[in-house]
Amino acid sequence: MFNIALFGAGRIGRVHGANIASHPETRLAAIIDPDKKAAMKLASKYNTRLMSVSEAMENPAIHAVCIASATDTHADLIERSAMADKAILCEKPIALNPTRIRQCLDIVHQRNMPLLVGFNRRHDPHFALLQQRYAQGAIGKAESLIITSRDPLPPPIEYVKVSGGLFRDMAIHDFDMACFILGESPVSVMARGQCMVDPEIGKAGDIDTAISVLTFPGGAMATIINSRRSACGYDQRIELHGSEGTLTVTNVRENQVQLWNESGFQQARPEYFFLERYKKSYQAQWQHFVEVLANQASPCCNGHDGEQALIIADGAAESLRTGQPVTLPRLR
Amino acid sequence: MFNIALFGAGRIGRVHGANIASHPETRLAAIIDPDKKAAMKLASKYNTRLMSVSEAMENPAIHAVCIASATDTHADLIERSAMADKAILCEKPIALNPTRIRQCLDIVHQRNMPLLVGFNRRHDPHFALLQQRYAQGAIGKAESLIITSRDPLPPPIEYVKVSGGLFRDMAIHDFDMACFILGESPVSVMARGQCMVDPEIGKAGDIDTAISVLTFPGGAMATIINSRRSACGYDQRIELHGSEGTLTVTNVRENQVQLWNESGFQQARPEYFFLERYKKSYQAQWQHFVEVLANQASPCCNGHDGEQALIIADGAAESLRTGQPVTLPRLR
Amino acid sequence: MFNIALFGAGRIGRVHGANIASHPETRLAAIIDPDKKAAMKLASKYNTRLMSVSEAMENPAIHAVCIASATDTHADLIERSAMADKAILCEKPIALNPTRIRQCLDIVHQRNMPLLVGFNRRHDPHFALLQQRYAQGAIGKAESLIITSRDPLPPPIEYVKVSGGLFRDMAIHDFDMACFILGESPVSVMARGQCMVDPEIGKAGDIDTAISVLTFPGGAMATIINSRRSACGYDQRIELHGSEGTLTVTNVRENQVQLWNESGFQQARPEYFFLERYKKSYQAQWQHFVEVLANQASPCCNGHDGEQALIIADGAAESLRTGQPVTLPRLR
Amino acid sequence: MFNIALFGAGRIGRVHGANIASHPETRLAAIIDPDKKAAMKLASKYNTRLMSVSEAMENPAIHAVCIASATDTHADLIERSAMADKAILCEKPIALNPTRIRQCLDIVHQRNMPLLVGFNRRHDPHFALLQQRYAQGAIGKAESLIITSRDPLPPPIEYVKVSGGLFRDMAIHDFDMACFILGESPVSVMARGQCMVDPEIGKAGDIDTAISVLTFPGGAMATIINSRRSACGYDQRIELHGSEGTLTVTNVRENQVQLWNESGFQQARPEYFFLERYKKSYQAQWQHFVEVLANQASPCCNGHDGEQALIIADGAAESLRTGQPVTLPRLR
Repeated sequence: MFNIALFGAGRIGRVHGANIASHPETRLAAIIDPDKKAAMKLASKYNTRLMSVSEAMENPAIHAVCIASATDTHADLIERSAMADKAILCEKPIALNPTRIRQCLDIVHQRNMPLLVGFNRRHDPHFALLQQRYAQGAIGKAESLIITSRDPLPPPIEYVKVSGGLFRDMAIHDFDMACFILGESPVSVMARGQCMVDPEIGKAGDIDTAISVLTFPGGAMATIINSRRSACGYDQRIELHGSEGTLTVTNVRENQVQLWNESGFQQARPEYFFLERYKKSYQAQWQHFVEVLANQASPCCNGHDGEQALIIADGAAESLRTGQPVTLPRLR
Repeated sequence: MFNIALFGAGRIGRVHGANIASHPETRLAAIIDPDKKAAMKLASKYNTRLMSVSEAMENPAIHAVCIASATDTHADLIERSAMADKAILCEKPIALNPTRIRQCLDIVHQRNMPLLVGFNRRHDPHFALLQQRYAQGAIGKAESLIITSRDPLPPPIEYVKVSGGLFRDMAIHDFDMACFILGESPVSVMARGQCMVDPEIGKAGDIDTAISVLTFPGGAMATIINSRRSACGYDQRIELHGSEGTLTVTNVRENQVQLWNESGFQQARPEYFFLERYKKSYQAQWQHFVEVLANQASPCCNGHDGEQALIIADGAAESLRTGQPVTLPRLR
Repeated sequence: MFNIALFGAGRIGRVHGANIASHPETRLAAIIDPDKKAAMKLASKYNTRLMSVSEAMENPAIHAVCIASATDTHADLIERSAMADKAILCEKPIALNPTRIRQCLDIVHQRNMPLLVGFNRRHDPHFALLQQRYAQGAIGKAESLIITSRDPLPPPIEYVKVSGGLFRDMAIHDFDMACFILGESPVSVMARGQCMVDPEIGKAGDIDTAISVLTFPGGAMATIINSRRSACGYDQRIELHGSEGTLTVTNVRENQVQLWNESGFQQARPEYFFLERYKKSYQAQWQHFVEVLANQASPCCNGHDGEQALIIADGAAESLRTGQPVTLPRLR
Repeated sequence: MFNIALFGAGRIGRVHGANIASHPETRLAAIIDPDKKAAMKLASKYNTRLMSVSEAMENPAIHAVCIASATDTHADLIERSAMADKAILCEKPIALNPTRIRQCLDIVHQRNMPLLVGFNRRHDPHFALLQQRYAQGAIGKAESLIITSRDPLPPPIEYVKVSGGLFRDMAIHDFDMACFILGESPVSVMARGQCMVDPEIGKAGDIDTAISVLTFPGGAMATIINSRRSACGYDQRIELHGSEGTLTVTNVRENQVQLWNESGFQQARPEYFFLERYKKSYQAQWQHFVEVLANQASPCCNGHDGEQALIIADGAAESLRTGQPVTLPRLR
């Protein structure tokens, strides 16, 4: 049984809290959040206690941390946890500043603590199965990867302003997915974007509709199709075209009911948004982290992967700004 | 090049006329119909001539006949054509009286003329492929066959009154399909029916909604689901469950366009009715008949098959009347 | 918080145990099973205690019972629970003897205790949504209901011999589903069956392939398609044809991955069997029972419904034996 | 009845020949091809005669021409036909040299003769319906258009060498489709490409895998996904995401048969290549041209459209070469 300290009692914190509490091998041992009301509500539900950051870090009974707090606290908490010899699951991104990421990862490396970065979609059973079948050779050599990732609605404009922009906030999941599926890192990125959905997003200096093309060392290209709006709901699909076939993941529907009448045949929408669509991903991610804690696995998405996705996102943003394709640095 | 005399210039006659005229190896040589106006219109379109029945029968240049006239003329025309040494394609049914059918088939047999009975759905590319794959062993031994066959709307009540009833008029296609797919004739039939769609149909002594269950010598059962009404349009599907898998044919849609929005995903309806859905079946049927004419094939649906389907239909009607399952006679 | 005594620590008992333990408003307070090893294993997992039947019945802290023990214990346990003023969720069937069922339900009625009979499929989110949309008028008046219910593999022959036969053991779920969807009880049943899958089943006096047709007071017919074998896995579908449209529930697939290659497009199989396919049904059933306990709902599937399904099953068995349709008694 | 002279008796010429001959309002009056054997074979099939170019141009009984000859003859034949007052249907492209196109179109314009350029996919019933529904407002304002267009196999390397390259030969259809659907011309194009399928294509200076992104005046982006290889067969799909929904066209399958077994559910491949997939497009295109001849319509795809598509293709090729996005000239 592993004792877990959960940093952050917000929306994602609650998802992690439920998974930690219901997993037979983990105990939700502490909740840390400056928002005491949210923290107490969660602690009460799972019959656990509040701690300060220091208390959690200094408590030798805490085996690991789950960091779901505000983005600007991630790097500090990772470092402190690593120094305190606690294994770490941290929501993406590690930080928005590449230098800060590097510092943080150096410390994790020195302390030799496992760090799982929370690109939860790698654990989605459908996407993971696609990746596995590709890796097993089901379609030969990859030629073209198409990722469609469209949100049902844009976030509040206040969130947009502090989000780091569409590439860092939203497309970053898809950049990571492309690397995960193809098993390598891209050599260049080229992006085009528009503000089509909400003029306020444009006024905030951001875009809401984007196409990014990544080129990989072997020649394969990945095309990422993003939008902050999808009238039919959350649109999350992948197509991987290979030399001997294609693997796809289609949308997961809300239900299997169909209505047939003179207007045609109607099926249900996709599951509405990420909390519904990726519910099983978060559960599988936690299961994977437990295996990491038990020394049965190494993190499938480590600090290097987190750094890589941010570098691609920043390259895409630069490409959008300059109109030029951007060559990406080799991380190692 | 084979010269063809077409009996009947009505709806189905026009379908056959177009196929005869456009086939590279057949010529529409004569049209025979007591409705002179309809006959002349068709003759004008295809630049051919009108004939009387006797003229056509006595004309040695006519190689074959296509009988698409009123049902009560079928048996006589088949007999006269056989006596005149002309190959025959005749729309179903041969007759509504089993004794009459037997007389007629005896003459065809004595003259040794090929007779193709027009159960066009045997030539539907989808159903024919299902039958072929089953015959090739794709799913092992057949256990249960489900045929769904639902018309978009009931025919006019005047037609219903002279149609011979749902089983002889409509389900007969499905009874033939069951024999075609399973490659044998049923030993018994049991039917249940209701008048759900239009009370006028009930007043006319007929039903509009029916379930028939055929049992075959090997134990396989075929369930036929019929309705005179289908709000989503013509619903024509088959499922064949076997020991090692299932083969199905789904509906053919009017188009491939989908609309995705907050109400869900909408696809097009099935093709509206049999002239659209089975257009290719009539073409393939004509191609098959040309091969029969060229001695390259024997009729895939012969007089025996036509007789068999009517016997099943009459058994179903008896079962509906008595509430009992009906044992079917062995034809040969 | 309601304290629950769970009778039965077998396969279904474990499903209920997990749902009881994870529901925020119920506590697994006792496990009762003559198989002490199975009972202790479950008690250890959920940190609860073993009891004898008498201890559970006499313990005033137990609010309700969940009966998932052997079929022949159901009626006794229901009666004792009702006498002890405990609300009851009991797996189907109440008993295999109609007289015994009636005695039992009389006692439940006298004690005025809520009894929820475990036809879990009523709680399947897909089927429940179909029923709801039909009840709301989405397709007008029901005309024909088709339920396909085919198991991946037959159960062990030892189980078959004591199962009560295909109609009581397997089709009974579909008979209940037909009543649930159409909202009324059938007036007659007619059934045909064969032994196609395993000759041993035939030697045991049972069938493995069946077609049942129920006729309802309003004229609608329900056709139930059953098989003990489905090579593609658990095949659970519904089609409801109405005067203004059709509602269907298609199979739930194991995953959304598709493989496209020269052989065609391949999708995943249906979820393998009922523990996977109906996992959410059991959860939703428990949620409903909690609402019953909280006086927020009355049992959606009561003793009368359980009795009704068995009466239909016995009518189907009689119809199979005699070859005749069987008129069903009006329960009340 | 319109008399048509057909230039070219090759693969596409034969498609047009069949449509001309079977249309009730057109007669195949002459075939012109330097390959006498091919020309005679076609003339014999349709019972028509051979002509020289001059004979056809000077024959006043010829109302219109269908130009399906070698690409480098298109512009000359268009000009001579226009000078001879014959209406023109010409296969794409008009020419590979923009200046030559402009000269040619000027003459067509001066003579005021109708010119229909053969981007047949505009007449595909599925794509045309998508365009129509979008134009009618079914999904609000267009935001992102995705066109997938992947050939089953690369053409022979000899063809590749003279094809003008992937953008001019293959993607040009998709560039035209984007303009057709969105109803406007793009302001810029950016393209990325690779040689992934066959190294010989790379040696010939061409690519076989490409992603092009067009930006339109209103901000909408069109992403074109091209490959010379698709292991599952011809992959032709469109997705148009708008402010209020999405319209898609999925692949047309070879048949509706499905096989369900323990490996999953298998459907048929898409129709194999363009002669099968776009058979109805060529027929509908000919119907449209007959309406143009009868002054009932103006060409839905005129010389301007043909010029536009080539300009985009050349822009894409330049973008690929330079790595930069290319601003496209405004045609008028």
